[in-house]
Amino acid sequence: MNILVINCGSSSLKYQLINSDSEAVLAKGLCERIGIDGSRITYQPEGGEKIVKESPMPTHTQAIQLVLEALTDSTTGVIKSLDEVGAVGHRVVHGGEAFTSSTRITEETIAAIEACNDLAPLHNPANLIGIRACQELMPNTPMVAVFDTAFHQTMPEKAYLYGLPYEYYEKYKVRRYGFHGTSHSYVSKRAAEFLGKPYDNLKTIVCHLGNGSSISAVKNGESVDTSMGLTPLEGLVMGTRSGDIDPGVMQFLMHKENMDIDEMLNVLNKKSGVYGMSGVSSDFRDIENAANEGNKRAETALESFVYRVAKYVGAYAAAMGGVDAIAFTAGVGENDKITRKKVCDYLGFLGITIDDEANAKRGEEIVISTPDSKVSVLVIPTNEELAIARETLALV
Amino acid sequence: MNILVINCGSSSLKYQLINSDSEAVLAKGLCERIGIDGSRITYQPEGGEKIVKESPMPTHTQAIQLVLEALTDSTTGVIKSLDEVGAVGHRVVHGGEAFTSSTRITEETIAAIEACNDLAPLHNPANLIGIRACQELMPNTPMVAVFDTAFHQTMPEKAYLYGLPYEYYEKYKVRRYGFHGTSHSYVSKRAAEFLGKPYDNLKTIVCHLGNGSSISAVKNGESVDTSMGLTPLEGLVMGTRSGDIDPGVMQFLMHKENMDIDEMLNVLNKKSGVYGMSGVSSDFRDIENAANEGNKRAETALESFVYRVAKYVGAYAAAMGGVDAIAFTAGVGENDKITRKKVCDYLGFLGITIDDEANAKRGEEIVISTPDSKVSVLVIPTNEELAIARETLALV
Repeated sequence: MNILVINCGSSSLKYQLINSDSEAVLAKGLCERIGIDGSRITYQPEGGEKIVKESPMPTHTQAIQLVLEALTDSTTGVIKSLDEVGAVGHRVVHGGEAFTSSTRITEETIAAIEACNDLAPLHNPANLIGIRACQELMPNTPMVAVFDTAFHQTMPEKAYLYGLPYEYYEKYKVRRYGFHGTSHSYVSKRAAEFLGKPYDNLKTIVCHLGNGSSISAVKNGESVDTSMGLTPLEGLVMGTRSGDIDPGVMQFLMHKENMDIDEMLNVLNKKSGVYGMSGVSSDFRDIENAANEGNKRAETALESFVYRVAKYVGAYAAAMGGVDAIAFTAGVGENDKITRKKVCDYLGFLGITIDDEANAKRGEEIVISTPDSKVSVLVIPTNEELAIARETLALV
Repeated sequence: MNILVINCGSSSLKYQLINSDSEAVLAKGLCERIGIDGSRITYQPEGGEKIVKESPMPTHTQAIQLVLEALTDSTTGVIKSLDEVGAVGHRVVHGGEAFTSSTRITEETIAAIEACNDLAPLHNPANLIGIRACQELMPNTPMVAVFDTAFHQTMPEKAYLYGLPYEYYEKYKVRRYGFHGTSHSYVSKRAAEFLGKPYDNLKTIVCHLGNGSSISAVKNGESVDTSMGLTPLEGLVMGTRSGDIDPGVMQFLMHKENMDIDEMLNVLNKKSGVYGMSGVSSDFRDIENAANEGNKRAETALESFVYRVAKYVGAYAAAMGGVDAIAFTAGVGENDKITRKKVCDYLGFLGITIDDEANAKRGEEIVISTPDSKVSVLVIPTNEELAIARETLALV
């Protein structure tokens, strides 16, 4: 079956058409600036050239219409008709406590996703627009919602409750949800498979390190803790996000800089992280280059990033009463051997030793710890689209 | 020499007169409701009864006058005249980056403490009032300021910088400072002495657990990380303080509940923590009783508290590349064997095993781990007043 995977943002839309038998990506691309002047679609068939076309798309429905036309184009298309799309898998950011796993999309599902809009006001409404647009154009194609939060719904109360008045949880469901769940689930499963160990009897820490970064503790196949919280702002220092800070910092800065809470959150989400610390860039490669050229702030930003990753690994080893495997994934986790090495340098006390030669390889699933390392350390490239396609296949 | 130790709050003042040779507490007590109707002084000489006297004290100067009168009282006093007070040691909460150790009080010191008022607007001004009042009444007695923050000034940048735009550090010195420094310093030193190990070659994690709680990582005699931050709100779940939360939670709740940032911080400081979670009390004994009677929220609050302590211990083991000793101190740390046991239950992966019989003892310095435990776990009762007296003695 061919599965169309849709990741719909407020003004952009990423898509992949995946054959669920071969797991090959038949085509993929991106619609940008939806509803804005200068919108364009990128389309790349398997083994073919990338095609970029400027085209008006006032709404998401037009954007998806253009995707479907590209997929079925008589020259560059990869399918003959839409009948060859067996199902659509939609990434949905926030499933609240309502969704503990992926689910078939029905009117009830949509209403339940809408009920979570409050928790992800920038993302869920955009995800829903994508769902509605696909329903309009492919009314008879089964669709599945795959949630960023669902995998973490197995967390126990001690991990998901904040130290807040309990009524905030009762009234508003304020709690830790966690994100990147599709990636944490995929990577932790693959790590177990790759090591030939039983997923339901393994303690794994997944370090999803990219521009957005999160860490999870996966015990016996279940997420038991993760670093992102009610929102994707908590946890590690990220590209532009602050991660953990003293709540008192916000009060102090809001008074000093005469900011309101929305302005403060804008700073914490978009002007902070390694970007704000270094003053260089949110891209780790730029910061590493600057550090190599002697930029002290860039160096400190990288050290802080690595230090916090190591501290979370230590914390999650405590959370699970030990750790069997640590898996690095996502942009930085997959490609940055220096970050991996530096994180693991802190972890000698867990009996971890790294094989520098293995650690230098790129783009493949690989064990980077030495055979006598007490904890297996791996690189597992994440593949959220494939994970969404698999989840979708399982439900249609 | 007799040293008067003063801990001055906005409407209260704690004092102890300590003989620096014997380290005996000659007398101790408390002035309450300074500047408020119904003020009273408590005075207790060594080995004697506690005396409580209602007495007007419109200002801190009158309060200290009453303390000095009580100390020199012909019947219940412990000294004949103020000449027998060789020095005064003042607890000062925030020394910013200006003070990396205790210091003799001069006009320059006072100006530098005033310059930190912004960072601790509730505490530093009160501490300064206490200093000024003592100067007025004992103009020729040398005085020393002992800072809550000073011990943590050895933290490296990676530990003290937040993931914020760097200019906030440059403009306002927004960074992690940490508190309870006198306790973390005293306890980590005593732990090394008690174990007969060199303080300058030991990795110790101090768990100062009370109504306010903080953890520190002390490597080779220097604090390298601690859980409290710019303010004493960050870190562990405390009696009424939230500790770490997603900054996004504050935006969410402020909009939902129509709170401003000061109202939000009031909730996070005074209505949160195990008190807010349990709805029972901020006192751990009350919450344990409630949990034992089947109160589920009380049970969860305790579990969350313990869980976060264990996670910080794991994080700081990573921060130091291992840990040799873990020392519990302060109200809960010294007296609550169940909390200590539950924290250590998470830490088996560090090779920790607890001697339940030793752990059941109270009020003494004791190793509570078994002889074959890879990490020594201790209880070290803290004594901030004695630590202040020692620091004072060293400087006069």
